[in-house]
Amino acid sequence: MKLSLKKNIIITNIGRLYNPGKTAYDNPQLLDDAVIIIKNSHIVFIGKKQNIPLSLTKNVKFHEIHANHGLIIPGLIDCHTHSVFAGNRSYEMELKFQNVPYVEILKKGGGIHYTVEQTRKAEKEILKKSLFSRLAQMLKYGVTSVEIKSGYGLDLETELKCLQVIKEVSRETKQKLIPTYLGAHTIPKEFKDNPSEYIHLIINQCLPTIIKKNLARFCDIYIEDGAFSYDQAKIILTKAKELGLAIKIHAEQIMNCGGARLAAELSAVSADHLEKMTEKDCIILKQNNVTPVLLPGAAFFLRDNEVDFVEYIKRQKLDFAIATDFNPGSSPIINLLLCGTLAMQKWSLPTHQVLYSMTKGAAKALALSANYGEIAVGQKPNLSIFDVSHENELFYWMGQKTAKKVIIHSNIFNFGR
Amino acid sequence: MKLSLKKNIIITNIGRLYNPGKTAYDNPQLLDDAVIIIKNSHIVFIGKKQNIPLSLTKNVKFHEIHANHGLIIPGLIDCHTHSVFAGNRSYEMELKFQNVPYVEILKKGGGIHYTVEQTRKAEKEILKKSLFSRLAQMLKYGVTSVEIKSGYGLDLETELKCLQVIKEVSRETKQKLIPTYLGAHTIPKEFKDNPSEYIHLIINQCLPTIIKKNLARFCDIYIEDGAFSYDQAKIILTKAKELGLAIKIHAEQIMNCGGARLAAELSAVSADHLEKMTEKDCIILKQNNVTPVLLPGAAFFLRDNEVDFVEYIKRQKLDFAIATDFNPGSSPIINLLLCGTLAMQKWSLPTHQVLYSMTKGAAKALALSANYGEIAVGQKPNLSIFDVSHENELFYWMGQKTAKKVIIHSNIFNFGR
Repeated sequence: MKLSLKKNIIITNIGRLYNPGKTAYDNPQLLDDAVIIIKNSHIVFIGKKQNIPLSLTKNVKFHEIHANHGLIIPGLIDCHTHSVFAGNRSYEMELKFQNVPYVEILKKGGGIHYTVEQTRKAEKEILKKSLFSRLAQMLKYGVTSVEIKSGYGLDLETELKCLQVIKEVSRETKQKLIPTYLGAHTIPKEFKDNPSEYIHLIINQCLPTIIKKNLARFCDIYIEDGAFSYDQAKIILTKAKELGLAIKIHAEQIMNCGGARLAAELSAVSADHLEKMTEKDCIILKQNNVTPVLLPGAAFFLRDNEVDFVEYIKRQKLDFAIATDFNPGSSPIINLLLCGTLAMQKWSLPTHQVLYSMTKGAAKALALSANYGEIAVGQKPNLSIFDVSHENELFYWMGQKTAKKVIIHSNIFNFGR
Repeated sequence: MKLSLKKNIIITNIGRLYNPGKTAYDNPQLLDDAVIIIKNSHIVFIGKKQNIPLSLTKNVKFHEIHANHGLIIPGLIDCHTHSVFAGNRSYEMELKFQNVPYVEILKKGGGIHYTVEQTRKAEKEILKKSLFSRLAQMLKYGVTSVEIKSGYGLDLETELKCLQVIKEVSRETKQKLIPTYLGAHTIPKEFKDNPSEYIHLIINQCLPTIIKKNLARFCDIYIEDGAFSYDQAKIILTKAKELGLAIKIHAEQIMNCGGARLAAELSAVSADHLEKMTEKDCIILKQNNVTPVLLPGAAFFLRDNEVDFVEYIKRQKLDFAIATDFNPGSSPIINLLLCGTLAMQKWSLPTHQVLYSMTKGAAKALALSANYGEIAVGQKPNLSIFDVSHENELFYWMGQKTAKKVIIHSNIFNFGR
């Protein structure tokens, strides 16, 4: 990868320019054979070459990018990841695929507690280095904005360390990082018999410190049998909201435990997973403007074959997002485009809804401004060029397509073959 | 990617050296903390550093490769691909995932006949260029041997063109290519009402010309309702065998049509797909030393959820291969390691059987010599270095792992980040 810096850019020979529709159920906005002009790091023109106003280009020297008749799409947004962790759980995946129950895996020293142990032990610099490397891989696939959750510390010190890692990497990368505090990922081993003490720690120490240090935009929680209940979650999230954080919820993944209902009650920005939600849950999400986030990687690795919840979303016409859920336990998939293929195969979603869900849909799931998830005049550029002639191909060549170039503001990332 | 040429190489700091077991049901052979010495393009030592005989290294200048405590595996073998084709069928994938029946897709001008049309029209140089590019992608994943079928020509001229493409590319690439004639892929449109005339063409023109020009090692056929019957296949394959070609069969993919039985009768080298075979089919494959080839990519794209056929294979302890089936219709997956993850998820196969199936298993499915699919003293090197500490990770980091270096004989391919 080579990086160059240019403030005035003209992108010519664009085969196809893709923008998502207004909602997941509208047609996308497509432009063939287009040109984009970027002046002083802002998009000033999108259209046919013959329609470029002379005044725009007069006396300006442009760096020309020949798009080689490829496809341009908005910078992709991965709105649900757990990208700060140490160690891996590859041995565990093999056991899982051989149908060894999760409780057995926990007994063998596996499961989330293994990652917590490794992450607690890891030096901050090691975590930063691995996060950088993961973000660089995501960038190759055209992902320019990434939500990243803590949640493998489960003590004040490590949760702060992980959020600090995100903050420091955020200053150095060109990608936009959105930090989420997920201290309530599971009950840590040391509080196994006293979950309320852990909730006390979250409310009275973790949340206030995170607010004071400005380390998170969202507070997330895992509501599930064996993790946190509806009531416990309500206590934590209510406090987080009071302190000024927006809310996300891991809801109804394995069992229906009221997560969607709570997301609606607290006006969460998103409710994620949702495999076991009812149509009623779906309706109250819509009524309360909560964006569902679908995570096909986890569904694949956990062999979840639910399809009804996606049918409810389609029938009720909710805008939705798709994300990688990148994590070492249930979704070691860093490639958002590969997750798109899984979503199409699993849930019969068409390309345009999948691409909407990684652009505008994901921007909604992160409450990002209108600058994200589409390409428009007036914006700072945030887009990728792929050597395909149709957006279908991003998902068709399963796991294979990487961007030729990614442009974020004045930065041009050139990926070779 | 950078290529360098070295005849004397010492690979140090190998974290783990992986060789498959004797059969798919034996443990693999693992060596930790090893060194490999290559002298005059032959492996002369594999073992611990302290055991290197002085005589081996005396007066020889070695090019040192520091394996950085990574994993070394034998060059992978993709034993079933359709890598010579023009065009793509991405629009069709979207329709298929939305449950549009294949007959509807055919009516819309899609299906295999679209690829045939595009491939007939394509210039040889264009086909060569795209095959080179595909092989380069495969090499990144550590694939050093590739079987490639014709079968998108379906007329004498185009079938010869495609096989000629393989032959010419074979001379220029360092990867080993194994050409297969698959003229009997489907009945071409122009013979729709006269399949026996097409069979006549295959037997009297195509096969003799291919033999004369030495363009194929195998003859393959698609036995399926709507393609070729058991009886038609028997005529074609018997002729191919007489002429000296070894046999492969696409068998029992959608329906059980006697393909496995015919593979056994004709002592085919492999029977591929097999989703609908019975346990009796499996037993006769074993009795006749036919290697089953599993194709998880096609099963994924066609949403085939059969598992019994893999249970038969395991129960009867057949050695087996796994391949990509890379093709524009039912398996646009070029990444063999990604197919490994699909196989583990779909069929509960353990890592070691999956890796066996891409090395020794695949070598059996191509009747390759003992040089293929394992790393041993005396051989010309054919291996890859990955930056993982355990072979599980090749499949765990779904679709993500690429080789750091691939060595084929004296050629060292260096892949950057």
